[in-house]
Amino acid sequence: MKIPTQEYFDRIAKFQANMKKAGLDACLVHGTESDFANVRYLTEYWPTFEQAGVFVPATGKPILLIGPESEKYARGRSVIPDVMLMLNYRESAEPDYPGIALSTFDAVAKAAMGKKKLKKLGLVGTAVMTKPTLDALAAQLPGVELIPADPVFRPLRWIKSENELNCHRKAFKVAEKAVQAMLNELKPGMTEFQAIGIAQREIYANGGEYEGHSLYCFGGDRTSNGISRPTEAKLKKNEIIQINIGARVGGYSSSIGLPVWFGKLPKNQLALVEFGLRAHKYTFELIKAGADAAGIAKAYEKWGCDQGWGDYMLYGPVHGLGIMETESPWIESTSKYKLQKNMTYQIDTFFTGNGYGLRWERGCIVTEGGCELLSKKFMSMDCCKLD
Amino acid sequence: MKIPTQEYFDRIAKFQANMKKAGLDACLVHGTESDFANVRYLTEYWPTFEQAGVFVPATGKPILLIGPESEKYARGRSVIPDVMLMLNYRESAEPDYPGIALSTFDAVAKAAMGKKKLKKLGLVGTAVMTKPTLDALAAQLPGVELIPADPVFRPLRWIKSENELNCHRKAFKVAEKAVQAMLNELKPGMTEFQAIGIAQREIYANGGEYEGHSLYCFGGDRTSNGISRPTEAKLKKNEIIQINIGARVGGYSSSIGLPVWFGKLPKNQLALVEFGLRAHKYTFELIKAGADAAGIAKAYEKWGCDQGWGDYMLYGPVHGLGIMETESPWIESTSKYKLQKNMTYQIDTFFTGNGYGLRWERGCIVTEGGCELLSKKFMSMDCCKLD
Repeated sequence: MKIPTQEYFDRIAKFQANMKKAGLDACLVHGTESDFANVRYLTEYWPTFEQAGVFVPATGKPILLIGPESEKYARGRSVIPDVMLMLNYRESAEPDYPGIALSTFDAVAKAAMGKKKLKKLGLVGTAVMTKPTLDALAAQLPGVELIPADPVFRPLRWIKSENELNCHRKAFKVAEKAVQAMLNELKPGMTEFQAIGIAQREIYANGGEYEGHSLYCFGGDRTSNGISRPTEAKLKKNEIIQINIGARVGGYSSSIGLPVWFGKLPKNQLALVEFGLRAHKYTFELIKAGADAAGIAKAYEKWGCDQGWGDYMLYGPVHGLGIMETESPWIESTSKYKLQKNMTYQIDTFFTGNGYGLRWERGCIVTEGGCELLSKKFMSMDCCKLD
Repeated sequence: MKIPTQEYFDRIAKFQANMKKAGLDACLVHGTESDFANVRYLTEYWPTFEQAGVFVPATGKPILLIGPESEKYARGRSVIPDVMLMLNYRESAEPDYPGIALSTFDAVAKAAMGKKKLKKLGLVGTAVMTKPTLDALAAQLPGVELIPADPVFRPLRWIKSENELNCHRKAFKVAEKAVQAMLNELKPGMTEFQAIGIAQREIYANGGEYEGHSLYCFGGDRTSNGISRPTEAKLKKNEIIQINIGARVGGYSSSIGLPVWFGKLPKNQLALVEFGLRAHKYTFELIKAGADAAGIAKAYEKWGCDQGWGDYMLYGPVHGLGIMETESPWIESTSKYKLQKNMTYQIDTFFTGNGYGLRWERGCIVTEGGCELLSKKFMSMDCCKLD
């Protein structure tokens, strides 16, 4: 399950067309170990320990830019054949690497653009672009105008190809197996870390390449966290235990979330779980090609308030899904776009009370008339009760 | 297995003393999801999806700075009670978060420093500090001098306390269990991803909180990579399969590396494996308090060349170990410091030939007369042959 090589070159060609429209001579794209999506989207390369970049001229061949330790790895993995090593992408331990020849941005620009002059360089992945790269640009490309250019690139990632959709579909199948194993094996007294180990085992056993995001399993008061990490605390009876499990396949992420418990929940918590599931299913109905994103967020919020649960809502009901489990675009009341066919979203239904909370979550693909759910499992109250 | 709360405040006090010596009014420390060490060292907080910072005044109370989604998580986890939410630490999807109140650096500085004027702000974690934070500093603190200040902070992390050493010791015990499970269960035909799943299962089952680094298992030509990631390729007979497995306990990392194989290796590869193990053990003898770091790197290189294997050496034989599996300081020929008691290192013995390579790796603690190995397992040729 992989993206075919040609598709990467098609992406680069579209990116270059956008660059020309925006009047940019080239773009520099940034990625890190945990936020690698932009670089992987263009090259298939995923840095480890180090950071990475892609220099893409408006016309001509792109160059993958890596740290001093990754040359063989990058040449073996990248679909782009041209690779240059640079100090600014080194790991945060900041070794000197005596004896390893390194390049600079002026040499990169020359290698990519020949005699063509670089005047306007777009910066992409600015949210994760780090100081060493920004400093190197300023020092090595004096006089070049640096222009934040995420809007030139980001929308390319919004609408998925059939290959990308298939990676997502498989990633959700793997996540389903991991969640099912947890439902089968979780026991009171097990630590949250141990619970995560069950999912990790299943992700890799079933064809996942990595977790889709930092996996969650936590109980009690911690379920009221929007985002969090598991702890050494033990799973207890009679309280919500929230699980969110995602696998990554061919680069593409997934996540399935549901609240579970042993024993009996207090009535108010059970009521919120039930309402959460209704809200989750209500959201499915709002998603279709042509729908206004802000309209969906507002309809969801109004519906929740009308049902009397407004105080338990925290933020937008849906966010983008792709290489990152959470990516642009979100569906928020401030959104300014309409949904299009083959955009992919996580329906992320989170409610939080005083000392408890829960999240129902799964992915979907926008279709003409509605949406294709990327998992149809684990969306009934029957799944939640573990004993 | 945790760092006691008081130890965090002791670290902050030492950091503040260094700041005063350096003439700084305050420092801003940065961390990301994958490179979180600086922030965790001061607060125990580990961001997920988002980035994070710590504003530490030279006198007074530090403030943990987080993204818009992490308030409950951060307040529950951070040992620092003061927490402020800022847009520049949001996740890379860059949502708007309508309705969530956010702060700015001028408000942070006022909250931390009162009427004291902020003139010189040190920047720490510059290797991972991102553009949104740098832009926010420039816009929200006009006239404040921003001074790269990693040297004011970084050496604090070099020498480990007894609590830190115990986390490392336990992290290596967990890694040993994961490696042993792999040696027991690996089979030809299994994918590299599936092999990693065995280790992940054991890490969490035995008290690990996460992987210590992106885990490796890869065979064939890919073993010549300095750093890499596993693939969907299947384990084969008669070639080197390199495994590097690390667990994380209480924030602290570990890694154990060794080459293994099924069947029979070509003679030249077997010879490099044997030489690598000798080089690995030779390195143990070089490490002790008072030893010159550059001297160790040079002695190792000379020894390897004298033995006739100089062409197979790539870079420095030892790197720092701590919250990150690879951290400052490295032991390189350009290093300019002497080893001190209770510094922790990874002895990272890597050799690469034409189409194959191998790494023997384990951690150690510098002692007065030598070093304490953090694992004494998996350092004989008997471990390598799996059938």
